[in-house]
Amino acid sequence: MPEGDSSDTTALAMAASQREISISEFFLKNRHLLGFDSPSKALVTTVKEAVDNALDACEEAGVLPEIYVQVSYCGDMFQVIVEDNGPGIVEKQIARIFGKLLYGSKFHKLSQSRGQQGMGISAAGMYGQLTAGKPMHIISRVAGDELASELLVSIDTSRNRPDIHRKKHVPWDRPHGTRVEIEMEGHYQKGSHSIEVYLKQTAIANPHVSLFFRDPHREEIRYSRSTTELPPHPREIKPHPHGIELGHLIQMLSNTPCRTLPLFLEQAFSRVGRKTALEIIERAGKGLSGRSFPKHIAHAQAAALHKAIGRTRISAPRTDCIVPIGEQRLLEGLHKELAAEFYTVVTRRPAVYRGNPFQVEIGIAYGHPGGVGLELDKEGHMHKKKRQTKSAAEELLAKADEPAHLLRFANWVPLLYQQAGCAITKAVIQTNWRAYGLRQSKGALPIAPMAILVHIASVWVPFTSESKEAIAAYPEIVKELKLGLQECGRRLAVHLHRGMRLQREYEKRTYIEKYLPHIGIALQEILELSDDECKHTLNKLDDILHQRRKT
Amino acid sequence: MPEGDSSDTTALAMAASQREISISEFFLKNRHLLGFDSPSKALVTTVKEAVDNALDACEEAGVLPEIYVQVSYCGDMFQVIVEDNGPGIVEKQIARIFGKLLYGSKFHKLSQSRGQQGMGISAAGMYGQLTAGKPMHIISRVAGDELASELLVSIDTSRNRPDIHRKKHVPWDRPHGTRVEIEMEGHYQKGSHSIEVYLKQTAIANPHVSLFFRDPHREEIRYSRSTTELPPHPREIKPHPHGIELGHLIQMLSNTPCRTLPLFLEQAFSRVGRKTALEIIERAGKGLSGRSFPKHIAHAQAAALHKAIGRTRISAPRTDCIVPIGEQRLLEGLHKELAAEFYTVVTRRPAVYRGNPFQVEIGIAYGHPGGVGLELDKEGHMHKKKRQTKSAAEELLAKADEPAHLLRFANWVPLLYQQAGCAITKAVIQTNWRAYGLRQSKGALPIAPMAILVHIASVWVPFTSESKEAIAAYPEIVKELKLGLQECGRRLAVHLHRGMRLQREYEKRTYIEKYLPHIGIALQEILELSDDECKHTLNKLDDILHQRRKT
Repeated sequence: MPEGDSSDTTALAMAASQREISISEFFLKNRHLLGFDSPSKALVTTVKEAVDNALDACEEAGVLPEIYVQVSYCGDMFQVIVEDNGPGIVEKQIARIFGKLLYGSKFHKLSQSRGQQGMGISAAGMYGQLTAGKPMHIISRVAGDELASELLVSIDTSRNRPDIHRKKHVPWDRPHGTRVEIEMEGHYQKGSHSIEVYLKQTAIANPHVSLFFRDPHREEIRYSRSTTELPPHPREIKPHPHGIELGHLIQMLSNTPCRTLPLFLEQAFSRVGRKTALEIIERAGKGLSGRSFPKHIAHAQAAALHKAIGRTRISAPRTDCIVPIGEQRLLEGLHKELAAEFYTVVTRRPAVYRGNPFQVEIGIAYGHPGGVGLELDKEGHMHKKKRQTKSAAEELLAKADEPAHLLRFANWVPLLYQQAGCAITKAVIQTNWRAYGLRQSKGALPIAPMAILVHIASVWVPFTSESKEAIAAYPEIVKELKLGLQECGRRLAVHLHRGMRLQREYEKRTYIEKYLPHIGIALQEILELSDDECKHTLNKLDDILHQRRKT
Repeated sequence: MPEGDSSDTTALAMAASQREISISEFFLKNRHLLGFDSPSKALVTTVKEAVDNALDACEEAGVLPEIYVQVSYCGDMFQVIVEDNGPGIVEKQIARIFGKLLYGSKFHKLSQSRGQQGMGISAAGMYGQLTAGKPMHIISRVAGDELASELLVSIDTSRNRPDIHRKKHVPWDRPHGTRVEIEMEGHYQKGSHSIEVYLKQTAIANPHVSLFFRDPHREEIRYSRSTTELPPHPREIKPHPHGIELGHLIQMLSNTPCRTLPLFLEQAFSRVGRKTALEIIERAGKGLSGRSFPKHIAHAQAAALHKAIGRTRISAPRTDCIVPIGEQRLLEGLHKELAAEFYTVVTRRPAVYRGNPFQVEIGIAYGHPGGVGLELDKEGHMHKKKRQTKSAAEELLAKADEPAHLLRFANWVPLLYQQAGCAITKAVIQTNWRAYGLRQSKGALPIAPMAILVHIASVWVPFTSESKEAIAAYPEIVKELKLGLQECGRRLAVHLHRGMRLQREYEKRTYIEKYLPHIGIALQEILELSDDECKHTLNKLDDILHQRRKT
């Protein structure tokens, strides 16, 4: 067979089989990318996506979130229900929000939110449709509307479009809110990758949220809010010029309605005023001026402009686009849900990766109360601590001979899966915990009865996959994480040092108490003291020794 | 502010900002998902995507691949060129293949290939466009065409469509093939995550490929093929009924042109003949029969059919859809590119995850030649081995006190990034290497002068992200990997045992050689031997001891 003929027919045959791939088909085949790789994970991911959306909507509307979650058996399948008291969804948007991948309000703006892709909840519906063969059931009511909208929606995966199977108006007892109901294959489990742990960790990072969960065995758990204050609303920002790339700049120049270059620079970017705009243009040269028309700028001019932007001093991005949990709330959350001996929290100042502001928060909870330590009471007396009864909360804290537990959060959302591939894990492993008195093998987490909580807030969190389970290791992010972990580590070292000092003192004290009676007998014999005098002397001696120990 | 009003206006405001997100916009913002998170990785990913496409095309056309790769400086930017001798691309398909994400011939069929998503090369072009602001430059010629087609193509990211900037017909010295040229921001580096390592590992797994690489410093490397035999062509298969999900079955039933249920089952699935089809239908019950019309089957009937399929014995999927590298080729590849002391290779039998056939291959190369060991020469005499000069090849093997190096492959393609998040790493860590005589900490790779090569071939490799850098840990895959690793581990243990025995013998031998002269002196004195007699006796003694050691 002559080679030419073969490759010729192949080229034609290959051309005939080239086709467009719909985004829904793609994710249906790659459903692990969206967090649906196993039946147990599918349930957790569904609850997570629905609750994240509910919380975003409530906060955007200024409503204190009350979320109801129910997972129940339904023949061979599971039924997941998530209901919120949010603002509700305008009827004509419902089908597209639930029945189309890559549709939403959060992708095109730079502002911190839990959702960012417009995929999660439609993916859950698609998984239900694939495994149980049934559409999603949605009820939503906008405040002021007399009736709620009820829809049955599925996804036409070959075209990534919603199919509406039924639409009607029904009475509903909620004045406003949304309820979504999905039937799917599932496997309900407890443990570190469970709906319960997701909800519990959500409560830690979101103390203004009330969550109610009914599990398949009809057991009910309520996580009540500990504050009625909503977190401040994150502000939407424009891109920072230092994060912009040449190709993006060229595209923006050709799409802008602005008629002059300075106006374009001022309007398209944050932190660029008239003065900075003119400075950039002057530095760029290449015939550019304050009167240049953005749409007519050539490639070489745009490249010069891009370089000039990089060389011009421009203030750091505004940071009110990010809302950290805050040291106070984080500490309260840790105290409320984790019983430990020592807590410390650090909220770093905002930093920037690729033009996107982000902020890192670290919390450490160390030591099982009543574990192995000692404590001083109010009068300064030392005791061995009493062992408390073990609660479910303690599961978040590692045992003394285990690697520390990591609680990872991104934009207030707990991350339960893919710990090994996450920038947070990388930063914890790269931190030298031995310097702070903990055991640690090379390339491993420190061994300690400890939980390390890490929160990254950003206008755009770079997740390693669409399932949003791990954060990509951008160097700027890893650096900030390590600085925060080191700060917490130093504080922990002080605590551990204090603990070790206490331990040594306790041993000395035990010796004193053991030998004091013998000293008493000796003194009594040498100084010929009466019993009362002896007792008095010993008390005085004990006090003096005790005083010295306290200073 | 009354809550109702606020949430009402919010619902309307939110509805106004809901928008569709184009897949290109999505990946532009999430470009780390496609492997473009840093300038150095961008270069490697671009070369990888272009070479993978080139190899797939050549093999499909039955052409022995000759690939030319060039990376060069181009002002502040880099220029990447990849050229192949494949079948070429029919002109009207060029723009869509390079200028549209999710477009290709490999997604919709179940057949092993390097590419599977129709995204890689367009993503590289998009990255070039974003960072350098220039379109891709493509030349392609189908055998028999008088001239080649030359196009400049970019992606309209807001609509995920190609923009053709120029199209013309040009003479080209190649009779058929494709050349792609992309300008982009980059950073050229050596080391474990380099283009060189990617090409070197490609050569190991693809001994029928010739690769030529010119780096930015104009240094040239050639990896020549060691065989002129093309691997067999993987056969395309239909889905196996045991891997099908209810929702998918329902969709297939409603889309099929078949007019009866048995015909549908036979035509849609592999391994289902008339007899099996009727058995399934009978087991399903619910009024289904050999005359049921697929499009009219209700949900409850489809669910019963789905259950019946699960309960019916059906032969395992055909396995000629998978083409492993093969033990012989793998061993040759390892020998050629890695200098080691001991090699072993295992190709497991094909297995199935979620209906998709896959096959696992493991190779181990252990010990630096001339490292710390001993060897026997042809006459059975023992020597300390000579240290060889260190070559670049040795970098693939770990040092004695380092964790073993992993060489991961999926469908003949080396995986360089995200080792921590890969099922292969998980399986290696979970294998108990201490049982085979190596050091290993809990949850870590074994410590040994060793390289572990792992290849997974499948009709659909479940990658953890679109950048195809790590494999998702489906339990069936991890299980197969561990079985293969254990087999190699046992063989390694035999080798190490032999090494340890040699070491002990060598020590004994050294003692003999050290003390033999003293024994000679003693014997000479006691037995009053002449010098010649003494020498003769000692030689005899040495021979006897030597003989005994050999048995």
